[in-house]
Amino acid sequence: MTHPRRARDLGIAPGTLPTGPLNAITDVAGVRVGHVTVREGERIRTGVTAILPHGGNPFQDKVPAGLAVFNGYGKLAGATQLVELGEIETPILLTNTLAVGRAIEAVNRWTLAQKGNERVASLNAMVGETNDSRLNDIRQPFPTVEQMINAIESASDGPVAEGAVGAGAGTVAFGHKGGIGTSSRVLSGKDGGYTVGVLVQSNYGGDLRLDGQSVKNFKTLQADVDGSIMMILATDAPLSDRNLRRLAMRCHGGLARTGAALSNGSGDYAIAFSTAEAVRRTPDRRAAASPILDLPNDKISPLFLAAIKATEEAILNSLLMAETVEGWDTARAKPNRVKALRLGN
Amino acid sequence: MTHPRRARDLGIAPGTLPTGPLNAITDVAGVRVGHVTVREGERIRTGVTAILPHGGNPFQDKVPAGLAVFNGYGKLAGATQLVELGEIETPILLTNTLAVGRAIEAVNRWTLAQKGNERVASLNAMVGETNDSRLNDIRQPFPTVEQMINAIESASDGPVAEGAVGAGAGTVAFGHKGGIGTSSRVLSGKDGGYTVGVLVQSNYGGDLRLDGQSVKNFKTLQADVDGSIMMILATDAPLSDRNLRRLAMRCHGGLARTGAALSNGSGDYAIAFSTAEAVRRTPDRRAAASPILDLPNDKISPLFLAAIKATEEAILNSLLMAETVEGWDTARAKPNRVKALRLGN
Amino acid sequence: MTHPRRARDLGIAPGTLPTGPLNAITDVAGVRVGHVTVREGERIRTGVTAILPHGGNPFQDKVPAGLAVFNGYGKLAGATQLVELGEIETPILLTNTLAVGRAIEAVNRWTLAQKGNERVASLNAMVGETNDSRLNDIRQPFPTVEQMINAIESASDGPVAEGAVGAGAGTVAFGHKGGIGTSSRVLSGKDGGYTVGVLVQSNYGGDLRLDGQSVKNFKTLQADVDGSIMMILATDAPLSDRNLRRLAMRCHGGLARTGAALSNGSGDYAIAFSTAEAVRRTPDRRAAASPILDLPNDKISPLFLAAIKATEEAILNSLLMAETVEGWDTARAKPNRVKALRLGN
Amino acid sequence: MTHPRRARDLGIAPGTLPTGPLNAITDVAGVRVGHVTVREGERIRTGVTAILPHGGNPFQDKVPAGLAVFNGYGKLAGATQLVELGEIETPILLTNTLAVGRAIEAVNRWTLAQKGNERVASLNAMVGETNDSRLNDIRQPFPTVEQMINAIESASDGPVAEGAVGAGAGTVAFGHKGGIGTSSRVLSGKDGGYTVGVLVQSNYGGDLRLDGQSVKNFKTLQADVDGSIMMILATDAPLSDRNLRRLAMRCHGGLARTGAALSNGSGDYAIAFSTAEAVRRTPDRRAAASPILDLPNDKISPLFLAAIKATEEAILNSLLMAETVEGWDTARAKPNRVKALRLGN
Repeated sequence: MTHPRRARDLGIAPGTLPTGPLNAITDVAGVRVGHVTVREGERIRTGVTAILPHGGNPFQDKVPAGLAVFNGYGKLAGATQLVELGEIETPILLTNTLAVGRAIEAVNRWTLAQKGNERVASLNAMVGETNDSRLNDIRQPFPTVEQMINAIESASDGPVAEGAVGAGAGTVAFGHKGGIGTSSRVLSGKDGGYTVGVLVQSNYGGDLRLDGQSVKNFKTLQADVDGSIMMILATDAPLSDRNLRRLAMRCHGGLARTGAALSNGSGDYAIAFSTAEAVRRTPDRRAAASPILDLPNDKISPLFLAAIKATEEAILNSLLMAETVEGWDTARAKPNRVKALRLGN
Repeated sequence: MTHPRRARDLGIAPGTLPTGPLNAITDVAGVRVGHVTVREGERIRTGVTAILPHGGNPFQDKVPAGLAVFNGYGKLAGATQLVELGEIETPILLTNTLAVGRAIEAVNRWTLAQKGNERVASLNAMVGETNDSRLNDIRQPFPTVEQMINAIESASDGPVAEGAVGAGAGTVAFGHKGGIGTSSRVLSGKDGGYTVGVLVQSNYGGDLRLDGQSVKNFKTLQADVDGSIMMILATDAPLSDRNLRRLAMRCHGGLARTGAALSNGSGDYAIAFSTAEAVRRTPDRRAAASPILDLPNDKISPLFLAAIKATEEAILNSLLMAETVEGWDTARAKPNRVKALRLGN
Repeated sequence: MTHPRRARDLGIAPGTLPTGPLNAITDVAGVRVGHVTVREGERIRTGVTAILPHGGNPFQDKVPAGLAVFNGYGKLAGATQLVELGEIETPILLTNTLAVGRAIEAVNRWTLAQKGNERVASLNAMVGETNDSRLNDIRQPFPTVEQMINAIESASDGPVAEGAVGAGAGTVAFGHKGGIGTSSRVLSGKDGGYTVGVLVQSNYGGDLRLDGQSVKNFKTLQADVDGSIMMILATDAPLSDRNLRRLAMRCHGGLARTGAALSNGSGDYAIAFSTAEAVRRTPDRRAAASPILDLPNDKISPLFLAAIKATEEAILNSLLMAETVEGWDTARAKPNRVKALRLGN
Repeated sequence: MTHPRRARDLGIAPGTLPTGPLNAITDVAGVRVGHVTVREGERIRTGVTAILPHGGNPFQDKVPAGLAVFNGYGKLAGATQLVELGEIETPILLTNTLAVGRAIEAVNRWTLAQKGNERVASLNAMVGETNDSRLNDIRQPFPTVEQMINAIESASDGPVAEGAVGAGAGTVAFGHKGGIGTSSRVLSGKDGGYTVGVLVQSNYGGDLRLDGQSVKNFKTLQADVDGSIMMILATDAPLSDRNLRRLAMRCHGGLARTGAALSNGSGDYAIAFSTAEAVRRTPDRRAAASPILDLPNDKISPLFLAAIKATEEAILNSLLMAETVEGWDTARAKPNRVKALRLGN
């Protein structure tokens, strides 16, 4: 078994757009990511990943956002308000299917405790999930609320750990160990020079395709097709919530290109938000009609392409950076071992 | 039978917000309305109504818009592109159910012929309809394409004819003659001083309510509940397409307050657009990221109230301003006569 | 101050359809409702209401369901999976805005503990909320998870307590005390004889209308318009999930008729489900193509009317059955007192 | 230049499911396809393709259907009623962008003239389009209404012509000549033995992928990314309209796998319908609650996979079966020539 390597290091680099310096969602300035991985005994293999749109108070300085659901077999929290108001006002937490309630509680507690939020009485926690029960005894109460809060508080910019970490600790993709992956793209100056970053929690199946590249010793995988994927996209382009929803839709384009089976039991969700200061919904802008910057429909296609490609590569990274994990299969009530995917020799 | 009088002249004036000078959709500066009424022989009682968002070329200077469908039993043309791009680029035509194809053809021909559109190869015609077949031999090819174009070309600002005119020539509401109605509201200066105007084509049933006001000699109507309504809302408030969709939703609130049965066979649609220059999608703004003005979510509720009230009054005007009409019932294949609604003695 | 009386006892009885024997959601056979009201000290005025579609295991015997969002400013949990699969597989909990996480946790714990669910690893908890922070110190962790589970376990058929109970303990509507209300309608035999029951948690404002009936000494209320409403509709009609969504839409018709302001800050949601055995998604029916009973589109309008009227009356009951409550205004950080609405002398 | 050959004849055969006997949408029993290709002079290269769900009167015997919009930049007619009622009641016509009005007129005229429809006063014409203006003088009034009706009347079962025919006469995909393509898949007996057939009108761009297969002498194409695709899926599986919508979504999965750029200017639509007699909405079934057959959510994933694979192959067939076409570029106002795609030699 070779060491984990990112897709790009193996020569798999979808498209021709360059990546940002880290090839990660944190290439979008201000975005922060925090992981808490929870491994307890032989059965608990789960965790939580927090994505923060900026370093300030997201409840006070909301960001425009869009949601795209391809197959809605999932427990996403916060969906209807995101769509109605076109914004996010909390960190986004990713975790396991049965931990969504605790994750909302964590987001609420953390938000209520932030300076300036002393009288807040309503907030819309964004929580996504996939089902890690093939390696995790998901009926047990992990992650805890405190572990969720820790993920938010530990979030930072800089490189993002990938593979079997955080919310990816117990997920399975294409019959191999999946998990967290990330990637980014930077547009040319004539297209605005914007950055698009994507982070995924992969947990689905299908017939894997590696950017159409043939790989030595690689066989088509006979994989469990059910599962899910959460895809979080950040960009510094000044987009309306409508165009952010359209950008989120393109994450599904990247997902499909990896050979996803898009099965009945899959929860395939993408959330896109903009970090551009010029569109941020600050208290001043929420108090009166204000000018905001808007990239028009006609100029958005390069961002769409970036979203497709960054998603595709983020998914491949989630697979290729994961290590083999031994845990507990909840539905079968027995131990399970899911191997890492390694290409080549 | 008394003369037709507008609801307000009969003391029915929903809410406390003042109307604009005309109490019409044309109180929103720039909006133009054109009717062509088609009465031929004993069977043809139909027509077309055109609403233009401004006096310029709408294909070049598009306006942001939103669509709200309550019950989608209708043949609305242009729906998916309006939603995807959040804009309207043509006049809106209202006509009868089986004339939608001819109306699209008319919008296309008119648009292609406008100065500046010489190489246009794609455009999204907006056409709504209700079914006037209880008074019109709807299987006959009226209005014609030429009549539709005439409605666009005759559109003007100023007072708007109501009742059995244009697209309302043959419609029926609450068992009485329905048709075209309009109303407007003006917000206070502290709420921005914006104007909201609504025009409806009423053709539905239920248990009529007149702003909760008891009216002498008025009985609850035993009405045919099927039918439809098209509601077009214009405002000069600088709104995003998302908030225009929300504003359009409130037209359905006004509709429900009139006692609409909201039946299976009803096509209940509302389209809202903004005429504000600061949000207009001009060639310059479609070419690069540009600042646009945006009224935030937190300041929109007064507009919502204006939409509810103006819609309610527009509907009542469509009833109270209609004259009795004799025509042809297509499904029953026999002549029909539908009386005007008159309150009081 | 007179005693609370239901709307019908005051002569307010929307429409001509008869009610069921209890004039409650529990007139739909099998439906169960449980309340836990939480009053602690001078600040906690909150609670939880559970609605169960039948007396069995809802995860094993799922029911078809539809969701209709009018204004999505709310924290509804379970939305996307309900829409994707067209079904509900848990009790529905109603509670306060910041308690949704705990409510999900409660639904999960209760469901995992049911006989037959020993290996369940994924479930979609349905939780709705409105914001009771005008009478409740909503930042405190009430209701607790245990209180939520108690609400599920205490659910029963029979009469349903209304007013300031359960999830309605601290809500405010039209500037007066709101809360839980319920009503039902029964169709004629020729329309199938089906029953429609509605239960609401009212917490919104507007200009109150009492079925268009003028009431002695009643003045139009100057009310806070923000707020929300959760509306749960049950029927024994054999409906597809698509037609259940349409039925849920008609709850918004009833809501609008009460004079709802439909403001920016309102979360207006309706969920409809069918208890008909012939459409229940049992393990057998989920295992193979099976015949199910389906009431066609063309026969659904009487149910739509029943939904409008039952919702309107349920809302009025929620107001008229509530007692005056003293509690804590979270946003203003001071005590508050909200009076009951009493009509007549 | 070699002769056109279908993808499968070139060794490109996505997935392992077998095709039906014709590898066409007409493998679904009852489905009929008719093309009228319109070539006039040097500028007119357009046409129309009609798809009929069965050989009877579709207005009387409606079929359940679902719609999935990926990017709604298009002029699809009939969308909102299809979604509201979950059914199709007319032939589906595909044509060019500016011919949608005439196509509706054609569907209306044809439907009104069918035996049994003598008193029909309302019908929902389904019309899709892509923009063939890179090879067609789209501002000219072709196809005519009569040509559209001819397409319906000439529809037949049996083999389906592909490439530059019917609605594909002037379309362009991946910078080469696109057009009409079709393919099918048959499920194993244990999965129900159902057939899925897809027909596409391809007119979009991206970075072409041929089922991940490397092809001799093939270079990545530098293609115009704008454009659109209409995808029509038929199946004999007994599906609800909700599950037909989900099946239609999977056509977009197949689209993405071909390397579609999913650009701003693309109208990407899929319509799926079921031909199963057991779900057909006959007059009897529309008159009373009736048992219908329903394949449950849990058994649908094999159909999803079939939809992905059949769509992918249908698109490749649309490219590989098209001949080089010379015509007129409307936006550039000059002649144009678009070459056929030929692999290898």
